Amino acid sequence: MCQLLGMNCNVPTDICFSFEGFCERGGATGTHEDGWGIAFFEGKACRVFVDTQPSANSPIAELVKNYPIKSLNTIAHIRKATIGAIELSNTQPYRREAWGLEWIFAHNGDLWNFNPTINGAYQPVGTSDSERAFCTMLNSLKKKYPDCPPPLHIFQKELEEICNPIAEYGTLNFLLSNGQVLFARCSTELYYIVREAPFDKAHLKDKDISIDFSQHTTENDRVAVIATEPLTDNEHWTKFEAGQLITFKNGQVL
Amino acid sequence: MCQLLGMNCNVPTDICFSFEGFCERGGATGTHEDGWGIAFFEGKACRVFVDTQPSANSPIAELVKNYPIKSLNTIAHIRKATIGAIELSNTQPYRREAWGLEWIFAHNGDLWNFNPTINGAYQPVGTSDSERAFCTMLNSLKKKYPDCPPPLHIFQKELEEICNPIAEYGTLNFLLSNGQVLFARCSTELYYIVREAPFDKAHLKDKDISIDFSQHTTENDRVAVIATEPLTDNEHWTKFEAGQLITFKNGQVL
Repeated sequence: MCQLLGMNCNVPTDICFSFEGFCERGGATGTHEDGWGIAFFEGKACRVFVDTQPSANSPIAELVKNYPIKSLNTIAHIRKATIGAIELSNTQPYRREAWGLEWIFAHNGDLWNFNPTINGAYQPVGTSDSERAFCTMLNSLKKKYPDCPPPLHIFQKELEEICNPIAEYGTLNFLLSNGQVLFARCSTELYYIVREAPFDKAHLKDKDISIDFSQHTTENDRVAVIATEPLTDNEHWTKFEAGQLITFKNGQVL
Repeated sequence: MCQLLGMNCNVPTDICFSFEGFCERGGATGTHEDGWGIAFFEGKACRVFVDTQPSANSPIAELVKNYPIKSLNTIAHIRKATIGAIELSNTQPYRREAWGLEWIFAHNGDLWNFNPTINGAYQPVGTSDSERAFCTMLNSLKKKYPDCPPPLHIFQKELEEICNPIAEYGTLNFLLSNGQVLFARCSTELYYIVREAPFDKAHLKDKDISIDFSQHTTENDRVAVIATEPLTDNEHWTKFEAGQLITFKNGQVL
């Protein structure tokens, strides 16, 4: 099993505080030490850092912690290998271009015996169930909408319809973004919080670090953070329902 | 215009020495300071670092210099923007998955008025001539070989046939790799060197740094380095001919 972290905002925001706590779960406070990755959308483009070392002591994670990249949509993943060897090709998040946009996907959960015929242009590079699910989703959407994606409310419905049968193979918690919105789907474990004015202090659960968001924000800022387990111990996080898919845009639930 | 650096080897090798000199051209010894990127194949997977800051003083370039990633195929690019704004979506190398393999592409040169109809699944995310060329190449190949790529000698011929009409729009020097081989095409400026036993010392042209390769290699190692301009001043680099496309495999010309 793995852990997910996502952030969707209305102004470009760095994820340093949340990532600091999240990284600890990759080898320090958690056993998700079989690689990690993070993707930052910057405009239409996306920057992805991945490493097969545990996030708690990866030099690349150290760089990411100390080099604040501001983004409207960020997705991070720490891995505990179950299906697929510990190697870079099985390290998430995964990335594909579709309709001239970058798509980033990270999955938590196991999809046992999920070996669909890959029917379309998107083919897995590695051997994980997660990448097979991502390619299946994109191939289905591209088959139905070859030229451009449908409007957002239809896209969400299509995504739900594609995901539900895949989720029957096991557990399908995931984060998916095209840089404009962030989709979060829950089978079992996923929480979110929306931070907006009046901003307050937050304290990490995995490391004794606090931040006073009121010192780093304007009153119009809004940030949604989504994670497998709440990252702070003094805020209220909302648990997703089983089977729920939420679209986040501009830092709020759409 | 931009500069290219590629490395193809028979054993995983780090590019630190060459990259150290190459980086200087992005803001120190050269004016290619509008972003840079480097892609390392590790097995079937690929790790790409990109930044819009000049390579000579980018914190990510600093990490890459000090974190030796060993790879059979590496492609780096430093940019001097001509077509397409200075932003991450126009920062090379570009990446796409095709036939279950990652493909990495970096281009040097300008393709003026190259605005083809994009006929296929691969669409540009940014606005550069280079990404349009890459997508056009992949779409043409995928159209003719939808299920799997042809054998290597046919693939090279197909690639040449696709590239020649594109090159008529201007200058098409490029590096392309799928992690197994590295294709290098020259319109105007491209050099290569094959280093093998007996290994000797090399001295960078852009920074006063030397290396004695005999201290870092075994007698079976073989490394081909390809660059827009020779990186060392005490070795013999071979200049490509205009229109020449060379396939490198296991550190040698195929």
